[in-house]
Amino acid sequence: MGTFAGRDFLTTLDFAPDEIRELVDMALDLKRGERRVSFAGRVAALLFFNPSLRTRLSCEAALARGGGTAIAVDPGKDTWSFELEPGAVMDGATQEHVRELGPVLSRMCDYIGVRKSELITSSQGTSPVTASYADLARDRFLHALAEFADVPVINLESNRFHPLQGLADRATLVEHLERPAGRKYVLTWAWHPKSLPAATPHSQLLAACDLGMDVTLLRPAGYGLEPAVVEAARERAEALGGTLEETDDQLRAFDGAHVVCAKSWGALQSYGRFEEEAHAKEALRADWIVDERKMAITDEGLFMHCLPVRRNVIATDAVLDSRRSLVVDEAENRLWTAAALFAALGED
Amino acid sequence: MGTFAGRDFLTTLDFAPDEIRELVDMALDLKRGERRVSFAGRVAALLFFNPSLRTRLSCEAALARGGGTAIAVDPGKDTWSFELEPGAVMDGATQEHVRELGPVLSRMCDYIGVRKSELITSSQGTSPVTASYADLARDRFLHALAEFADVPVINLESNRFHPLQGLADRATLVEHLERPAGRKYVLTWAWHPKSLPAATPHSQLLAACDLGMDVTLLRPAGYGLEPAVVEAARERAEALGGTLEETDDQLRAFDGAHVVCAKSWGALQSYGRFEEEAHAKEALRADWIVDERKMAITDEGLFMHCLPVRRNVIATDAVLDSRRSLVVDEAENRLWTAAALFAALGED
Amino acid sequence: MGTFAGRDFLTTLDFAPDEIRELVDMALDLKRGERRVSFAGRVAALLFFNPSLRTRLSCEAALARGGGTAIAVDPGKDTWSFELEPGAVMDGATQEHVRELGPVLSRMCDYIGVRKSELITSSQGTSPVTASYADLARDRFLHALAEFADVPVINLESNRFHPLQGLADRATLVEHLERPAGRKYVLTWAWHPKSLPAATPHSQLLAACDLGMDVTLLRPAGYGLEPAVVEAARERAEALGGTLEETDDQLRAFDGAHVVCAKSWGALQSYGRFEEEAHAKEALRADWIVDERKMAITDEGLFMHCLPVRRNVIATDAVLDSRRSLVVDEAENRLWTAAALFAALGED
Repeated sequence: MGTFAGRDFLTTLDFAPDEIRELVDMALDLKRGERRVSFAGRVAALLFFNPSLRTRLSCEAALARGGGTAIAVDPGKDTWSFELEPGAVMDGATQEHVRELGPVLSRMCDYIGVRKSELITSSQGTSPVTASYADLARDRFLHALAEFADVPVINLESNRFHPLQGLADRATLVEHLERPAGRKYVLTWAWHPKSLPAATPHSQLLAACDLGMDVTLLRPAGYGLEPAVVEAARERAEALGGTLEETDDQLRAFDGAHVVCAKSWGALQSYGRFEEEAHAKEALRADWIVDERKMAITDEGLFMHCLPVRRNVIATDAVLDSRRSLVVDEAENRLWTAAALFAALGED
Repeated sequence: MGTFAGRDFLTTLDFAPDEIRELVDMALDLKRGERRVSFAGRVAALLFFNPSLRTRLSCEAALARGGGTAIAVDPGKDTWSFELEPGAVMDGATQEHVRELGPVLSRMCDYIGVRKSELITSSQGTSPVTASYADLARDRFLHALAEFADVPVINLESNRFHPLQGLADRATLVEHLERPAGRKYVLTWAWHPKSLPAATPHSQLLAACDLGMDVTLLRPAGYGLEPAVVEAARERAEALGGTLEETDDQLRAFDGAHVVCAKSWGALQSYGRFEEEAHAKEALRADWIVDERKMAITDEGLFMHCLPVRRNVIATDAVLDSRRSLVVDEAENRLWTAAALFAALGED
Repeated sequence: MGTFAGRDFLTTLDFAPDEIRELVDMALDLKRGERRVSFAGRVAALLFFNPSLRTRLSCEAALARGGGTAIAVDPGKDTWSFELEPGAVMDGATQEHVRELGPVLSRMCDYIGVRKSELITSSQGTSPVTASYADLARDRFLHALAEFADVPVINLESNRFHPLQGLADRATLVEHLERPAGRKYVLTWAWHPKSLPAATPHSQLLAACDLGMDVTLLRPAGYGLEPAVVEAARERAEALGGTLEETDDQLRAFDGAHVVCAKSWGALQSYGRFEEEAHAKEALRADWIVDERKMAITDEGLFMHCLPVRRNVIATDAVLDSRRSLVVDEAENRLWTAAALFAALGED
């Protein structure tokens, strides 16, 4: 695991598939109790610009079980607004430059976690549109903080990636398939009342591709993921003997699938035109839900979802309550992969 | 204490009086330093839908002193809204079903605490009235979460019960009376500008009854507690040789009392008609306060209150500052009873 | 360090300079790894009526690294409002008297930290003006809590003092100057769009004076600090062979300085007339910024600031990014001085 020590974890694309696989194997060792880690005296500052339940709990619990401590702060809500621009004359809204924030957090803590996504909608309505998708996908705050920090910076979900979810999905696939390479994995879009961010499906797609699976990205026309991410995923899959194809043909996609992972996301091309999108996608609602009828044509396919899941919207009760649903295992694996990651990044 | 291991702690009515007494004795052993507990590696998720100072601090400090960790989350404010209905089509406000929440929290944490009360008024004005008292008293979220969780669920105050306060009151009575059975305990209503929930007085009534005391529930006409709770309390008192009587006669109640516990609560029968109630109860204000004159007719009676207490409204300064006031001891016992409870529920 | 055990830490004026110096030396020993402290089983309740990033992180991390736990609560936002007046009839907004709050927190925790400042402006606009500066500077809540608490109360920033910042500044001066006595220290006012509190510059002035430095308080006419604080600082400086002079002559102040500490604060005499002040001080903006031209006439002067700092408003990029800027070291010293303080106050 020496390859992780002291590095940032912003996207799995910064690591080779076999490096990440080693991390996932460590997580499963921790889960089985075959290995233990100590975080005694270790402290992580977790900055949540967006609310979090699962990510916060899994990171805090992972550290706490090993004797470490997470300090969760909500900078977006009640403390500072941060400046990124070099040379800025800070006489406006921003109060602290990332050039100070990064080093200061590094002197006080062993890890810095950051959740910052302008694409995450609140529970009430949509987020304000502050920039284009292309601009938001640069995740500028995250990268600037990583540049100026001296300890590992961990992406707790940005506009472009949610790599902790990607780790948990890898662990779940390895745990339940043993040898995932060459098995058929479908990442299927599902209807949802909101326009959700693409960070999670990006990281889920990369998870399956990094395991050399035969991956189908199933989505209606107009709902492609970011082309650069899809291309990177395809290259990594093919280098491992896997494949990646995109389609809007549900029957073809579900046919013979070993794993179906459901997720909704907004149309990136029309990002920000939420009402127009909501109206247009009503027509997709009836057909783009994972139900027993579709699961029946898989090869006894396993079902995955990152949670929280809207029941009978993304997938039916019957699918979620079946023996082949892995959603709770997948959530639990957030804990063990977080523990493995903190251990690997923090190695001396 | 084996009878607590792995169980939920939703109300003391789920446990026999002698089981609870054993827990209280353990708490007092911890307080005296005659026993120690370790929570190393243990994690509790504490969900606060309502704000909390004492409950949060006592639970967090209890775990922390033993090397464990509490993760307090405010789901009501900034994260998810949860669905309870089986079969719900979740295309509206709710984002996660308790069928997922329960198992997921159970995989990450060793305990789940929940404070959820629609009856608790905020510091600003009254709470919105969302249902009848009878409906709210079902505490549906709490029970649904307990149903789907695999680790102990602890009620940190619901609409109907506040069993942690009940434990602390038991410990305080045992600590100061040695043998509480047969001593006279008065739970007296007091005037307060708001219509407060009945959860705490319900749990306080049960505390005295479970110790076999001679209990007087003193309240003006129209301020009875929930009849089913009063009946359950009476049965438990009588089974232990105690009694329970209700009255609105203050002189008779205070006469010869060994303990006076003051508390205000709203009229359950007219729940939701707050302005009408506030107007009507103005007439009670002058007479329904605990003062030295009343305490003088007790048998050197001890004074209890769960805190926070409005001075010179619920009780006078003279009563609160007297040597016979136990309110700070009672609050401290929140810490030790929480520690005993976490230990007992978490035993392997 | 026995002189700190069990005491409150509300202002450094309550301690002799050599007592504080001993604490600072301990902090630097901790920083160099020459000494270790354990906080196993220790718990601090940190009440933040105002938001905090650096103070919260430094205190929480200091305790966590030694195995202790901080519980940060935001009482101002979502829990209780507290009563201070003796004899108050609490039928209004206040829900808990400090006469209960102090003892109860003391039973549950080993330390109580309090940040409460009516002068701190939020990120959005100015704070409401609730009283005169003279009244606010009494820090009544802080002192009342300390009166009724039985464990050490630590001032995490009040209207008048920010003694934790003062400790960190002392540690930074000792660390970088070795023998600060007799060296020239300039505390310079700088322009800032808001009217900031005087607590931090008060404590910074005391830091330099307590080290026997030759201190210049440099500020434009009308921006003097609180006279009683300046007088106390002068007396302490002079007792140690140092000096304190006030001036508005920037050239004279910077000339030959060994240390320049920049800070902005509002005009105390016109406290509350924020718009009028903002308009009047526009004329000061161009000249009252720390830049390379001014630093060039120092004696290779070191630069300090408490952070967060508005770049190119308080000081230029060139100053902040120079080798002689200590701002990150100064922030790190918040951690080590907090650790030393918790250890010294908590000694048995």
